[in-house]
Amino acid sequence: MLSELGERKVIEIIHNIIEKRLDFKPDFDDSVFVKLPSSDYLVLHTDVLNESTDFVEEMGFYNFGWKAVISNLSDVACKGAKPLGILFSFSIPNKINLDNFEKMVKGICDACKENDVIYLGGDTSSSNELSIAGFTFGITKRIVKRKGAKVGDLVGVTGKFGLNSIAYEILFKKIKSDETIKDLSLANLFKPKGRIKEALMISSFLNCCMDISDGLAISLNQLCELNGLGAKIFNIPIHEKVYEFCEMNNLDPLELSLYKGGEEYEILFCFEEKYLEDIRNILTSLGCEFNVIGKVTKEKKLIYDDGKRSFIIENRGWEHFKKWL
Amino acid sequence: MLSELGERKVIEIIHNIIEKRLDFKPDFDDSVFVKLPSSDYLVLHTDVLNESTDFVEEMGFYNFGWKAVISNLSDVACKGAKPLGILFSFSIPNKINLDNFEKMVKGICDACKENDVIYLGGDTSSSNELSIAGFTFGITKRIVKRKGAKVGDLVGVTGKFGLNSIAYEILFKKIKSDETIKDLSLANLFKPKGRIKEALMISSFLNCCMDISDGLAISLNQLCELNGLGAKIFNIPIHEKVYEFCEMNNLDPLELSLYKGGEEYEILFCFEEKYLEDIRNILTSLGCEFNVIGKVTKEKKLIYDDGKRSFIIENRGWEHFKKWL
Repeated sequence: MLSELGERKVIEIIHNIIEKRLDFKPDFDDSVFVKLPSSDYLVLHTDVLNESTDFVEEMGFYNFGWKAVISNLSDVACKGAKPLGILFSFSIPNKINLDNFEKMVKGICDACKENDVIYLGGDTSSSNELSIAGFTFGITKRIVKRKGAKVGDLVGVTGKFGLNSIAYEILFKKIKSDETIKDLSLANLFKPKGRIKEALMISSFLNCCMDISDGLAISLNQLCELNGLGAKIFNIPIHEKVYEFCEMNNLDPLELSLYKGGEEYEILFCFEEKYLEDIRNILTSLGCEFNVIGKVTKEKKLIYDDGKRSFIIENRGWEHFKKWL
Repeated sequence: MLSELGERKVIEIIHNIIEKRLDFKPDFDDSVFVKLPSSDYLVLHTDVLNESTDFVEEMGFYNFGWKAVISNLSDVACKGAKPLGILFSFSIPNKINLDNFEKMVKGICDACKENDVIYLGGDTSSSNELSIAGFTFGITKRIVKRKGAKVGDLVGVTGKFGLNSIAYEILFKKIKSDETIKDLSLANLFKPKGRIKEALMISSFLNCCMDISDGLAISLNQLCELNGLGAKIFNIPIHEKVYEFCEMNNLDPLELSLYKGGEEYEILFCFEEKYLEDIRNILTSLGCEFNVIGKVTKEKKLIYDDGKRSFIIENRGWEHFKKWL
C-alpha cells in the first residue's frame, strides 16, 4: 500500500524503474531542464492539486485555482527561469457545480495575470475527484539548482513563518483562535503570494535555491542532504501573530514554525556573503521580508542555535500519503 | 452540472474566462506552441487519463501507463515536433496496490523507450482516484497545425478502422465475439502503437494534421470546421476482422468505424496531390498502412460517397462527460 511508504519513497520507486528500464538517472531536483539548440535552458515543472488532499471548504474554488498556479510557477522561478506559460489538465467530477468550476478558472487566470504568465490551455477529462495538474515552463541562460551551496555560504529566506502552521492547527486540530489570527493565517495558506519576481531578480546572486512547500524543517534538511553539507541556523523569522497564538494555546512558536508548516511558497537560498547587500536591496525594494537565517557548514549536521536554545533540526513535517509524520 | 455540457462546452467556458480576464484568445489547437529566441517553435501538450474514465480491468496497469505516453506524444508529433521529453503528475489513491503502480510506471518507461523520449520525472500527490497527467514538449522549425487545409487537398489517414469500435461494443455493451477478434480489438484499444515516427517523417509534406482520438467522424468534422471547408470522403479503410464481427452481430461496419470508435491514435492529414508518392513511400517503408480517403472541398459539407452509399458524416461519437452522444 502506498500510504505506508510516503511520497519520497514513491518517487524513489519511480526513479528506480526509470534507471533500470531507461538507463537514465533522473535528477532529484524539483524541476527538470533541457538544453536548447540556442544553448539556453528550458526549465519544466509539473505540480498537481487534488480536492481530497489539497482542498478544504474554507479555501474556496477561486483560491484552489490560484494556488495551483503559484505552486507551479514558484518552482520554475526558483531555478532562475521566468515562467512563460502554463497548461492545465483538469480531471472534473460530473457532479461539480459549474459556478465553482468557473471560480477555479478565474483564480487560475488572476494568478497568471499577477505573474505575467500566459495560460495556454490544456486538457479536460471526467473523473470522480477534482484534480488539476499544472505544467509550466520557462527559459534561462543560467540555472540555479537546489544543489550548489558552498561551505561558508549564508542561508537566506523570504517571509516570516508560522502562519500556515496555525492554519493547519485550526483546520485539522480544531484549535480555537481569535478571528484576526484565524483570517490572517487561513489567507496566508489559501492564497499564497509566491515569490516569482523576487526569485528571478536575485537569481544571479544565488548558489542554490528552492521553494518551501513541505515545511521549513524538511526544506532545510533537503537542502543539506542534496548538497552533502550541513548548516548552523541561528534565526527563524516568525510572524508576530504566531507568538500571540502560541501563548494562548501553550505551544512553542519555533517548533510550530519549523515542523508544522508547509506550502508557504517562500524561498530558501544560499549565497556568498559578498552579495548580501545586493540581495537585501533588491528584496527590500520589492517590499519583501528577507532574513539571513544561518550559514552552510562542512559538518553534515543541521543545527539550530540562537545562543539560548540549541538542537538538531529533524527531518519531519507534513508529507503526502503519510499525512502528519 | 458539467455532465450536461460535454467536454467541448467545458473548454468553451474555460476559453471565455481566459479571454475576458486575460485579454488573450487561446488557439483552439490541441497542442500549444511558443516561439523561442532561436526562432524554433516549442510545442507543448498535456493529456490526462483517469481510472474511472480511461481504465477498465481488462486493460491492466502496464497498458494504462503505456497509453498515457502515446496519447501525449501523438499530439506533439502531429505538429511536426519530435517529442523530447515527458513529465507526469501522478494522483494516487492510498489503497492502490504497489505491484500495479510499478506496472504502470514500467508501461510509461517502455512507451518512452519505444519512441526515443526521455521520461524526466514530475509530481506525485495522494487522491481518491488514480489520475495520470502527462506533459510533453518538442521543438520544430515548422509547425503543422490542424488548420491549414486547402481546397483540392487530398485527405489521408494511417491505419485501418473499426477495431476499437468492436472493443467498445465488447466492453460496454457486452456483445459476444470470438476470441481472436476480441483479443485483437482489445489489444488495439489498450496498447495503441501511435504514429509518432510516421507523423514526423511526413510532416514536411502536410498542410494540416491531427490525431484521431475522439472517433473518426468527430475528427473529420473538427478538421472541416477548423478549416472552414468541407470534404468528400470516398473510402474508409476498415479492418478485415471488422466485417466478420459485423456480419455475426448484424452491424454496419461503416457506421461502427465512423461513429463508435475512438483513441485509435492514427493520424488524419491533408496534403497537395503532388506529394502523394513521397508520403506513400515513407509510410510504406515504415510498414504503416496508408490510405487516401477523400478530398477537401470549398463547400462546407462533409459527405461520404463511395459510389454505392452517400450520406452526411455527422458530428457524433464518444465524448468525455457525456459519454456516448
